[in-house]
Formats: sequence, C-alpha cells, structure tokens
Amino acid sequence: MPTPRVRATLVCRVRAAYARIEAVDRPEIWIGLRPQADLEAEAEALEARLAAGDHLPLAGRLLAVKGNIDVAGLPTTAACPSYAYDPAANAPVVARLRAAGALVLGTTNLDQFATGLVGTRSPHGAVRGAHDPARISGGSSSGSAVAVALGIADLALGTDTAGSGRVPAAFNGIVGLKPTKGLVPTDGVVPACASLDCVTVFARTLREAEQALAHMTTAPSPTPPRAPGPWRVAVATPEHLGPLDEGWQDAYDDAVRRLASAGAEIRPLDLTPFTEAAALLYEGAFVAERYTAVGPFIEKSTPDLDPTVATIITRARDIPAHQLFTDQARLATLHTKALKELADADALLLPTAPTHPTLAEVAADPFTTNARLGRFTNSTNLFDLAAAAVPAAQVNGLPFGVMLIGPAHTDERLARIAELLTPEVHLAVVGAHLTGQPLNPQLLSLGAVLDRTTTTAPNYRMYALDTTPPKPGLVHVEEGGAAMETEVWRLSAESLGCFLSTLPRPMTLGKVQLTDGTQVTGFLCEPAALENAEDITAYGGWRPYLNERDGEVL
Amino acid sequence: MPTPRVRATLVCRVRAAYARIEAVDRPEIWIGLRPQADLEAEAEALEARLAAGDHLPLAGRLLAVKGNIDVAGLPTTAACPSYAYDPAANAPVVARLRAAGALVLGTTNLDQFATGLVGTRSPHGAVRGAHDPARISGGSSSGSAVAVALGIADLALGTDTAGSGRVPAAFNGIVGLKPTKGLVPTDGVVPACASLDCVTVFARTLREAEQALAHMTTAPSPTPPRAPGPWRVAVATPEHLGPLDEGWQDAYDDAVRRLASAGAEIRPLDLTPFTEAAALLYEGAFVAERYTAVGPFIEKSTPDLDPTVATIITRARDIPAHQLFTDQARLATLHTKALKELADADALLLPTAPTHPTLAEVAADPFTTNARLGRFTNSTNLFDLAAAAVPAAQVNGLPFGVMLIGPAHTDERLARIAELLTPEVHLAVVGAHLTGQPLNPQLLSLGAVLDRTTTTAPNYRMYALDTTPPKPGLVHVEEGGAAMETEVWRLSAESLGCFLSTLPRPMTLGKVQLTDGTQVTGFLCEPAALENAEDITAYGGWRPYLNERDGEVL
Repeated sequence: MPTPRVRATLVCRVRAAYARIEAVDRPEIWIGLRPQADLEAEAEALEARLAAGDHLPLAGRLLAVKGNIDVAGLPTTAACPSYAYDPAANAPVVARLRAAGALVLGTTNLDQFATGLVGTRSPHGAVRGAHDPARISGGSSSGSAVAVALGIADLALGTDTAGSGRVPAAFNGIVGLKPTKGLVPTDGVVPACASLDCVTVFARTLREAEQALAHMTTAPSPTPPRAPGPWRVAVATPEHLGPLDEGWQDAYDDAVRRLASAGAEIRPLDLTPFTEAAALLYEGAFVAERYTAVGPFIEKSTPDLDPTVATIITRARDIPAHQLFTDQARLATLHTKALKELADADALLLPTAPTHPTLAEVAADPFTTNARLGRFTNSTNLFDLAAAAVPAAQVNGLPFGVMLIGPAHTDERLARIAELLTPEVHLAVVGAHLTGQPLNPQLLSLGAVLDRTTTTAPNYRMYALDTTPPKPGLVHVEEGGAAMETEVWRLSAESLGCFLSTLPRPMTLGKVQLTDGTQVTGFLCEPAALENAEDITAYGGWRPYLNERDGEVL
Repeated sequence: MPTPRVRATLVCRVRAAYARIEAVDRPEIWIGLRPQADLEAEAEALEARLAAGDHLPLAGRLLAVKGNIDVAGLPTTAACPSYAYDPAANAPVVARLRAAGALVLGTTNLDQFATGLVGTRSPHGAVRGAHDPARISGGSSSGSAVAVALGIADLALGTDTAGSGRVPAAFNGIVGLKPTKGLVPTDGVVPACASLDCVTVFARTLREAEQALAHMTTAPSPTPPRAPGPWRVAVATPEHLGPLDEGWQDAYDDAVRRLASAGAEIRPLDLTPFTEAAALLYEGAFVAERYTAVGPFIEKSTPDLDPTVATIITRARDIPAHQLFTDQARLATLHTKALKELADADALLLPTAPTHPTLAEVAADPFTTNARLGRFTNSTNLFDLAAAAVPAAQVNGLPFGVMLIGPAHTDERLARIAELLTPEVHLAVVGAHLTGQPLNPQLLSLGAVLDRTTTTAPNYRMYALDTTPPKPGLVHVEEGGAAMETEVWRLSAESLGCFLSTLPRPMTLGKVQLTDGTQVTGFLCEPAALENAEDITAYGGWRPYLNERDGEVL
C-alpha cells in the first residue's frame, strides 16, 4: 500500500539528520557513521519503491545501531577496535528493520562489550547526556539513546542485560522497550551474558518504538491471561526504593498518582527480592558469563581495552562454578518471592534508575556509581520479565524516567499502561468556552475537566471581537492592564492538539500569565482582529460584559 | 489513592451536564432522567469519599444507561412503558461502574426491545442524529450514543445483538466497544436474542471506553496468540462492500491507507461469508429468539408497542424449529469460511454501516432501510467476534465510522489497532522551526514529518521580533501583504498538543492561510510583540531575511 505523501521527504529527512549531527557536535555518539551520500542514495531508492507501490512501513525512518550489533559494511567492534570483525551480513534484527524501509545511519558508541550502565567506558569517549553534557548518557547503549534524544535518529537499537536498554532511555528522556527474552533474535550480537541478553529499541514515542519492535520480533508471544478488572500496578515504598536524586521521589509519586487517576489499582509491594537479585547480578557468579563471551580476547590485554571493563571481566575468570550453583539456587528463591509479590499485578512501576550522576562522579568512582544505577533494572532479565521504560517528568530541568515491568509476554500490556503516564496539559479559556457558554461543549466532548477558576495577571486588556459567536480578544500589555476572569481546563495533549487544529481565525492559542504568576496555554487572538473591536477591559471578564450587555438589550 | 484535583469539579460537571441537556433540547434521548439534585448530592458524597482517600477511578464520570438495562430506582421499560418493571437492583454492569465512581444520569431511549438499528422505533420519539437532526441517530442504543456525542454523558451503556452498540457510534462520531461475548455480564438486561446479546460501552475516546470496559468485565479474557510481526489487517474490496454513501468509499480507503502508513500489513479478503451470515440474522430463523424473550408480552398488543417492532417479533412466532437447525448448519459453514478468510489477520477493517439515512427515509421504508444498516455488523456476534467501532473521518460534514473486528478475546488488540486511525494534523512553520533552523529539532523529536514547502497566501506581513532565538512574527493583513515562505509539517494531534503547551510567549498558533487557499494551524504572534519589530515582509520569508542579514554582518 503506497504512502505517497512520505516520498518527497525521505531525502530531506536524511539531510536534516546529517545537518543535526554536524550541529550537535557530539562525535562520541558514533563508532561508524555511514556517508551521507550513501543514505541519500538509499532514500532515493526507497522513494522509487514507494512510488512503485511497495509496502515499506518504516520507509525513511533513520536507525542507529549499537556497536555490538552486526551492520553489513561496518566493522562490529563492541567499542573495542582491536576486537573488530567485518560481519558477513546484517544481524537479523537489523535486516528486518531495513527490509521494512529503515535507513541505517551507522553504529553507535557503548560501554565496551556492553559492560556498564554509564556510557563512559569507551575508547571512543564518554557519551554525554543529551540534555546536560556534564551528566552521563547512561549505558551501555549510550550512543543509540543520545542519537534518538537529540533528534538525529528516529529509532535506535540497544541491548539490555542489566538495564542497558532502559537506563539511557531514562537519562535522555526517551522510550526504551526491553522485550521478553527470546522474542527478538540476538544472532549477530556480541554477547554480554548470552543467557540474559535482549535486543531493545529506543524511540521518542511509545508508538514508534512498538512499531519497530513488531518488525524485530520473530517468536510468538502468548500473552498470559489476567483476571478481569482495571489495571493493577504494584509500586514500591520509599523505604524499599532507597535514596533517589532530589525531586525524584515526588516525581515517582506523581507517576503513581497519574496511573491511579487513569483508573489503575495501586498496591504496594515488597521490593526486597528484586533488589537482592539485582545485587546478585554484579556481586555474584553471574558475571562469569561475560568471561565466557569475551574472556579469551580480554586476556590479550590490547591497549584499547577500557580499564574498568577489563578489570570486571578478568576478575570473572576466577569465579568457581560451585558459586554459580549457589547463586542460581538463591536466584530461584528470590524469583519465587518476586512473583509472589507481583501476585496478579499487571505491572510493577519503578524509577528506571535511582540517580543520574555526572561524568565527574563516575570518573571518581567507576565501580560503585555504576552498580548503583542497576538497582531497579538488574533483576528484570534474571527473573525473565518484560519492561517498558518511558519518560515520566522533568525534574530540575532534566528527564526523569520510570519503568513498567511485568511477566514474560506482557510486552503489549506494559506499553498500554505506560501510555497512561502521558502527562495532561492545561488550557486557559476566557470567552465562549467558559462553563455554560456556547462553545463549552467542545471542551467537554474532548474530555477536558475544569481545573480551577482564576484570573489572568493584571496586565491584560480584553476586547469584544466581531466574531460569530461573539468572542473576546485577550491582549497582553505592559501597562494599563487588568485581571480578567479565566477558567483553566485540564485535558490530554491529544485533545489540545485536536482542539487547536479546528480553531478558526482570528483566535490563537499562546501563553497567558495567570494571577499566581504561572503561564498556561490559553486563548489570545490575531492582531488584525482588534481593529474596530470594543475595549471591554473594565468589565473584568467576558461573562460580566455579556451580563451587562444583555441587560442593556432588555 | 486520592486524586484531589478532581474533587472541586464533580458538582460543576453535573451542573454542566444538566445545562447541556436543557440547551440541546433533545428530550427524546431520555426515558428516565434522574433529578439534578440527586446527582449533585451523589457528586458531593463522591467528593467526600475522594477526600477521605477512597479509590474511585471513574469518580464523577457521567453515565447514561440504555433503557433495557436495570437501574435501581428507575423502571426498566425497554422503550415500552407497558412492559415496565421496577428492578430490585442495578444490573451488575451498572453496579460495577457506580462502585468505581460513575454517576448515573438516567435511562436512555432505544429501538423498542432493542429491535432495530435505526433509533426511530420508540414511543418516546425518534432519536435524531447528534450532528444532523434530520438524520437518524442509529440504534438500537440511540439515546446513549447521542448523550455522549452531545457532551452530556461521558460514558454510556448500550447493548449489541446485530450492531446496536456500533451503528449509533458511527453515526454520532464516537467510540463504541462491543466486547467478546461473555466478558460483560448481561444479567439485569432485557434480552433481545439472549445467546447473542452483549453489553457495550460508548465514549468519546478509546481510552475512556476501555477504562470503563475494564470495570464492566467480569470474566477472564485469554488473548489468543498471534504470529509475530506488524499488525495484519484484512480489508474488503469495493465489490464486496457494495454501495456506500457518497464519499464513504474514499473515506474507507483513506482509513486503510492510514493503517498501512502506521505499519499495518493490509490484505484483501472475501467478505461473502460475513455478508451472507448478516443476511441470515434478519431473514432466517435466528430472529425467533426475540420471540422467546418477549413474545408472550408482545401478544398482549399493548397500545405503546412500536408497530414495526411488534410485526417483527410477532412474525417470529411461527418460524419452525427445523428452519433453525437448517440455519445453524448454514451458519457453521459460513463461520468456518469466515475464519479461513481472516486467516492470521489481527482484524478486519470495515465501514460500520453502509449508509446513514434520514429520518424520512426510514419512515418511508422501515424494514429495508434497517436491514441494510446491519450489512457489516450483523455477523459479528453470530461468529463470536469482538469489535471496536471508532470515528474515522468527517465526510460531507458528518461522521464516518469504521469497525475493527477480530477473534474472540482480541478486544485489547482491536483497540490498539483502532488507535492507529487517529488522524494526523498539520503545522505551518515560518521561522526558527524551518528545516535547518535552530528549533527544527523540536519538530523532529516530536516525530513530525515535512509534508511540503509552500508559501502563505499573499496577505501576510512578517516582522523580525526581539526574541531569543530570533523569530518572525507573521501577521494577517487585508491589504499590502505578500506571500511568505512556509513549511507544512505533519504530526500527531498529541505531538501538536505537546508542542503548543511548551510554546513560549510571544509566539502563538492559529490559522494561517496558504497560497492554495487552505488554512492550516501555524505560527502567529501576540500583538504586543510587534512593537519596535522590524518589518521584513520584503524578503518573502525568514530564511531570505537571515541570509541577507548575515551577509551584512560579514
């Protein structure tokens, strides 16, 4: 089925991406960036195929691939140039996305051999956070996450053993889906812990991430049954969460409140089995699987090995197998406890990470800082769970992310619950959309809810415009203004977008300052609409003006 | 978990609903409207419970209940006053929604005994369409659908035997979910065809409808497994669809294109088994089940019987049982064929109805017109399928609706696919958001796609505002304007809402007229921003102005 409107824009999109790569000046994102000309040629070829009627649902979606996943034509390095090999073919997951029309920009930086959650352990340089370059990007899928967050790539592949597909999503304000183990093939991926590794996807929206994941999935996913009723979401108490960055506990509580307000039943759970299993991943015998994967290479001590990574993997050589048996037994006990805690909950809501350190903090203590980052993510794959990491708030100007974790094969269900975290927005109305006025039903039919009645700051003037139905024109003035009666309504961003797209001239929406000093989206008007309009500021609002006018008519 | 922000507004919401009931002057919607004072008292009680910390996820959501479903305190009439009985209790489905905080406005009008898809067969009057009172509302859940569409109720219950929970959704531009048979209890519902009846829910958005349905569902719903990969959607050819209202075939094709463009794999199917089963429902022996339900009452020939309904049910008395065996065998064959046609498709996309008749057309030929309405809906319950009916477009100023139909227990999956039909919107940018300009990544990061580069109509002036980064102020003028370079971007309504809610003063969004005469949402500015701004109209756009200015600096 052709999608002709897309065609003319594929090459434009490629050019915009390379302009953006230039503009952001973050060379550490990339290990192997493909030449712009190659992408433009591929974009043109896609346009021709679309014109011929080919079904290419991801046509022109720009894809960044973590550097431990095979991309034909580029060396696979896992961020260790001396380890590099030239893959014979694309990893199946890359091949499938390309077959659907995605364009591969190149391979991205990572914590070497995917060993770390920081994004700093790479000879290609530490990847800086998308929104604050003094902070880490998170890892190990560092370059992939930042490429998406900075608007360079639309989609990016990561891998996740202990949280590498989720921690960088949280730190960079994007979505990261960690599918149930086994759904997405890991062929053509340099293993970290082969029995735990998952290929993950980053995108800016859940819908885009889920669309890509549908193409990546090769195994059937039998969704487990659930008891009927509203979503049931387990949450952790502050005691179990432990210390969080400043403002994060409040942001987590707010996410819980939003789920409750969207109808979910909230139930506290004992997080202990999860955090104990998390500790086991780093402190116990499971790390030995990393030696199985790349130990013999690490023993060569090539100069481009990251010293922290080399230390971790080398140490793992001497872990005795009997400790692994002990840890496996311990894990089995914790797994049983964890499932008992989850009970019939559809999901567990957690902050994705407890803290977002600076590059300096990680450099000062590379082991402890990293280990702390995995407190909430480490147990997911050990317990064979699925997870969706989504942005939940801005705290102190930086993204705060949460995860929904659920039983294997509940991937779609987790995404649905995560959708409920989409924040609401506000709209200030001053005229025909006020309660009881003729256009108020437009708001009601969009599911808007009256939040409060207030006034603007005392620096507005109001005019009666020559519109049908009659509407007020609100105008910000430096001097000589007054406070105007205002209702603030709450609605979804989608409803606000629908409302705006049907708003007729000369009405506009911009920012209106309220009496409490805050600014909310609200009604204004085009300058030309003010010509010959009657200044009604003295009435203090639209309703007093209407009352007075109707009185005159009578 | 309390949701304190909601509290102050529950009573307001009740008042707005009753004001709206007054304003719309559609008395035929209601059979039993409860007194406003009772609702206000219940709203106050809910506010107190919320304040005490009760979890009431549907707190204050106003619910209309189809008049064939028991509401304690109101007679159940099925639109036949002489049939009325006083129910001992709320039907379980009503009780469950009330327990979650919904407020019952009252009982709504319907095609008597839920016999019809028109909404005109009632002694309480024909229910007029929400958007064009000369057209039918659709039925049999007529009053419920119109109450939601007109912004009176937030949620409404219907029932669906042959399409009664979907046809009125389509005609009134709202969502109607027809759950898998058996998920929602039908106790306390006057049966139409007891073996086929489903209780359904109407809402203005999928999310609201699904939230309500979660509370209504009492049986587990084991989602059947699916083969991995993108959504697979079966569609019907124009030949199989048969005649549709003017513009509806194009609107259906456009819905197909939108699903394809959102990634779904589209595959044509032979609709014959579906339409043959649909015909069997009205022409065959299955209608006898209506006599089983209310035949003895109909035989009393009370004067308030709708003559068409009485004819249909009375005729059903004489259908011999051997014909039912014949029809059941025929249905089994068609069912097998239908499932074979669906194959591994996740859903079948169909127009909800083939036509939207006027009240006059139905009055002129009550039987044939009604039968035609069920062409696409009638087979759903006979085949034990689930369905989600959603608005898909406006055609000739009226809603056009489509259905996604899928196997039993794929209710959630159908809703997800239906979400992909959410229309995209446009945004015209003229300054810092143009391709390559500093704020363009904001658009990219919202998933916006460049649709086309064009100019405004030649009646705009452009000013260089004193903003950081520098931005243009576009102003509509009656005379002395010029055409300004413009890019039109496509994005989701949600992305547009997010974009607007972070837009800083003095920028605004309103309607911008383009050179082709169309108007799209685009950048404008507050009047005050134009003071001391430089008129740069002569450059013909922001980029030529920047180029010239940068030249001067060098």
